[in-house]
Amino acid sequence: MADQYEVSETGAGTLAIPSLRWEEFPESPAVVLLDQTRLPAEEVELVCTDVPALVQAIQTLAVRGAPLLGIAGAYGVALAAVRGFDVEEAAQALASARPTAVNLGYGVRRAVTAYRRAAAGGDGAEAAAAAALAEARAVHAEDVEASARMAQHGLDLLGELLPGGGHRILTHCNTGALVSGGEGTALAVALAAHRAGELRRLWVDETRPLLQGARLTAYEAARAGMAYTVLADGAAGSLFAAGEVDAVLIGADRIAADGAVANKIGSYPLAVLARHHRVPFVVVAPTSTVDLETKEGAAIEVEQRPGKEVTEFSLPHIQGGGVVGGTGIPVAPLGALAYNPAFDVTPAELVTAIVTEAGVVSPVTRERLADVCSVSRWRKSRSGNGMMAE
Amino acid sequence: MADQYEVSETGAGTLAIPSLRWEEFPESPAVVLLDQTRLPAEEVELVCTDVPALVQAIQTLAVRGAPLLGIAGAYGVALAAVRGFDVEEAAQALASARPTAVNLGYGVRRAVTAYRRAAAGGDGAEAAAAAALAEARAVHAEDVEASARMAQHGLDLLGELLPGGGHRILTHCNTGALVSGGEGTALAVALAAHRAGELRRLWVDETRPLLQGARLTAYEAARAGMAYTVLADGAAGSLFAAGEVDAVLIGADRIAADGAVANKIGSYPLAVLARHHRVPFVVVAPTSTVDLETKEGAAIEVEQRPGKEVTEFSLPHIQGGGVVGGTGIPVAPLGALAYNPAFDVTPAELVTAIVTEAGVVSPVTRERLADVCSVSRWRKSRSGNGMMAE
Repeated sequence: MADQYEVSETGAGTLAIPSLRWEEFPESPAVVLLDQTRLPAEEVELVCTDVPALVQAIQTLAVRGAPLLGIAGAYGVALAAVRGFDVEEAAQALASARPTAVNLGYGVRRAVTAYRRAAAGGDGAEAAAAAALAEARAVHAEDVEASARMAQHGLDLLGELLPGGGHRILTHCNTGALVSGGEGTALAVALAAHRAGELRRLWVDETRPLLQGARLTAYEAARAGMAYTVLADGAAGSLFAAGEVDAVLIGADRIAADGAVANKIGSYPLAVLARHHRVPFVVVAPTSTVDLETKEGAAIEVEQRPGKEVTEFSLPHIQGGGVVGGTGIPVAPLGALAYNPAFDVTPAELVTAIVTEAGVVSPVTRERLADVCSVSRWRKSRSGNGMMAE
Repeated sequence: MADQYEVSETGAGTLAIPSLRWEEFPESPAVVLLDQTRLPAEEVELVCTDVPALVQAIQTLAVRGAPLLGIAGAYGVALAAVRGFDVEEAAQALASARPTAVNLGYGVRRAVTAYRRAAAGGDGAEAAAAAALAEARAVHAEDVEASARMAQHGLDLLGELLPGGGHRILTHCNTGALVSGGEGTALAVALAAHRAGELRRLWVDETRPLLQGARLTAYEAARAGMAYTVLADGAAGSLFAAGEVDAVLIGADRIAADGAVANKIGSYPLAVLARHHRVPFVVVAPTSTVDLETKEGAAIEVEQRPGKEVTEFSLPHIQGGGVVGGTGIPVAPLGALAYNPAFDVTPAELVTAIVTEAGVVSPVTRERLADVCSVSRWRKSRSGNGMMAE
């Protein structure tokens, strides 16, 4: 059985529970996760003391979000190594836990490579395990750093685009501390604006079908004390028409070499609305999200998810709310087909700017995007452990 | 107590249950409604033998949709008259059951006026009641007729706009037989295309927050044997981008004199997407929806509905599904604010055509709209009982 148990943290006060941390308990090291399937109703931590437990947490979406999955994958490899399990087997299981999660494979690869290098150098199992853990910590620290840099670059950009402050920001899906070792991507920028006294309103798309906006972004916004309002995705048009949106801030799942942005389904309609109303449409993502191997947006393969996410209403693991064990309440007639792509693709010409940890790309062109990525990669290669040099 | 009881029709086979009918039961006349709050899970009829029962059905949304509310209001007045209750009091209760429903007041007024005229003529109570009932039947018959005419005009328009057939139609909310004495407005056009072998796919926006698309349009499409697919509202953008939408067909709650169309929230983003992708955006509505007193779209007051519709998940009266008596499952954090307008306004310049029972308005201008309305009103005034002369 997977060695996973729960620690309830309900009533933990105003201190945030980190979305993921490495913990050296007396009985065992562990990867401790905030269980995102239970939010916002409950704040429960999952303690994973072996890799099968962590794989299960990844598959049930207890841990999710591109950067955070990379960190989870790296720590998972370290966990196997420190506890003396088969590292190659663990890496395989982790990397394939969610096949479409690019960052997961990236984090796993980083930790496994460090482990192999140390083992090949004849350092012994303990030293190799320490190397894997150090690399996982590096992946984690890089993400914290990248998140802080994106927040600052994004805040500066908002200041340029919207002089005078009092920003009313529309966002989609969840892009905050729950997807990151740090404070996230787009939501980190909104949070920076909030702390700077520049945020008048955060408009939160509920983000059907899985409601990451209503459930997770609203949770983070409430904890941070931001002025936020949830809306059905279709209501965003009215806000634009009423002049109530100053900028759109979203994250990205993948950015093609031509600057096309794949992100949660429902992002592209916001880009079209933003263009129609001459509102800036800003994407916030680390350079690790840029996939220079994918030449253009049209080449991005879009994951089709089960139609049940649309035709049934289900909140996994909600206790006492009438929905138990993920059994859905049918909404549409029995046998109804559903079209349920996980994300959509926004072409570069509709994107005002891409904010990365290495700087802002605007206007979004193939050349400028490649430039920012090469600067970022050069910094990482110079710093050896993947941290940025400056 | 309201004199309302249920007749279960589950297992009624392929025959449709009419959304509303007048029935002369031996013990009492009655307005019999298909309870829309229980669809698609159950087909249950509500038998209303007095006005308080009908008012309750209107308030709980068991009966809904602009044209159908007009018919319900007219029959409600007739019901009071036939059963010998106070007609003026009944009319007052019906007209104020849902304050924003324009058609409800229209239907009530028609029946009350007929009743008063007959009573003032000294015909006696029974004859006055018969006059009210005749007028209610006329309102009903007009709607059936208007629906059939809109379907034909709409089908002709599709043939012109999209030669070659095989239409892929995107629709929003519910605009079929459930909102009408006939087959409805936009969905009646799609149904006509289906019967003509011209419909390749009906894309059904789920229509958050109340899911009238996933629940009601999908129910109607399934019964009619149409090829339909449900989608989250935010997924429509991907369909446009993939070239999978040939036309958008929607209904209207109110059309201003300048051709601006108020319709279910989420309609305006479709209009902007349609314009961006050069896809026809067609509104189907009877001329009774055109409000020449409202000079322009900006003057249309938008009803703000309770935030709970967004922050909680609730299907009223679903039995055995875990949700009983309208108690919602919280989705967003406790205390979350929500922006929940009932509809949005699409300006005339984004509307390719308005299809009415009296003809097609395209391009949509103030003058052409007024012309079509005056033709329609002239016909009605000539025909005396409100039926069209030709």
